[in-house]
Amino acid sequence: MNVTEAIKKRRSVRSYQDKELEQEKLERVLEAARLAPSAKNFQEWRFIVVKDKKTRKKLAVAANNQTFVGQASVIIVCCAETDNYIMRCGQLTYPIDVAIAIDHMTLKAVEEGLGTCWIGSFYEDQVKKILEIPEDIKVVELLILGYPVDKVEKIKHRLSLEEIVMYEKWSK
Amino acid sequence: MNVTEAIKKRRSVRSYQDKELEQEKLERVLEAARLAPSAKNFQEWRFIVVKDKKTRKKLAVAANNQTFVGQASVIIVCCAETDNYIMRCGQLTYPIDVAIAIDHMTLKAVEEGLGTCWIGSFYEDQVKKILEIPEDIKVVELLILGYPVDKVEKIKHRLSLEEIVMYEKWSK
Repeated sequence: MNVTEAIKKRRSVRSYQDKELEQEKLERVLEAARLAPSAKNFQEWRFIVVKDKKTRKKLAVAANNQTFVGQASVIIVCCAETDNYIMRCGQLTYPIDVAIAIDHMTLKAVEEGLGTCWIGSFYEDQVKKILEIPEDIKVVELLILGYPVDKVEKIKHRLSLEEIVMYEKWSK
Repeated sequence: MNVTEAIKKRRSVRSYQDKELEQEKLERVLEAARLAPSAKNFQEWRFIVVKDKKTRKKLAVAANNQTFVGQASVIIVCCAETDNYIMRCGQLTYPIDVAIAIDHMTLKAVEEGLGTCWIGSFYEDQVKKILEIPEDIKVVELLILGYPVDKVEKIKHRLSLEEIVMYEKWSK
């Protein structure tokens, strides 16, 4: 599947089949994250793959009781092991770099016929307790991954290029 | 080009041909950003496309005097128009969402035969002054884009999957 097609087909999938995800597929998705670029090649990303059903249910509760979070066959808990490095532009490296790795995974997942959904609505302290994550580690996002229920998810509205792109200087 | 190939071929390109980038190609790259997902579908990203050579040179100076920044035929100044929304997990939405959009562009650029490089080392105040960007707008990254000089960029070392992936709980 080409890049454009993957970008167009990607949806935030919130309905999953109760079907186990093959380890080879999972590893191909994780490999996409591994190859991502990062500021100064820090590679601060760390991923906890949760397959256990009971643990997934606990994580769904920590994710503000969004039950679909526990229905995907895998939850990839996307963390950062970081010194909180701030780039000259004023931005922390780790949220951006972890996001790059996750985005790679979401597009690779489409190519594998899988669905994903980014979950930012969760209580970090609860997730840390469930997975025994040390104090100094950041939990940035949960990425749920699995076989989508075969239905067409609605396409969310997008701003037009004219609304988001300017030329040569700020002009809004 | 499939997703895996694009992910494997992507490099941080620091040498560019002095060759104009076709507007259609540029728009296809921007379209990849436009279709990116964002928290609550905020779409906080705003892009200033800089083609003017003089302005690019000024931006290269603002980017800590990295001259190659001015050599790519286009600099996409990646901004956020944001209320600084913080997700329940504690992370700001805008750096993550702008990163997703940029990552989409970097992979689409590979498919178009183009090179990119993320630039986080720049002085935000200087960039804002050059492009007349309002005070309340964040400049998150610069993305340079153009035809790469035909040489094989070195592949940076990556941690192994074993070093970045854990199963069921934190276990390092």
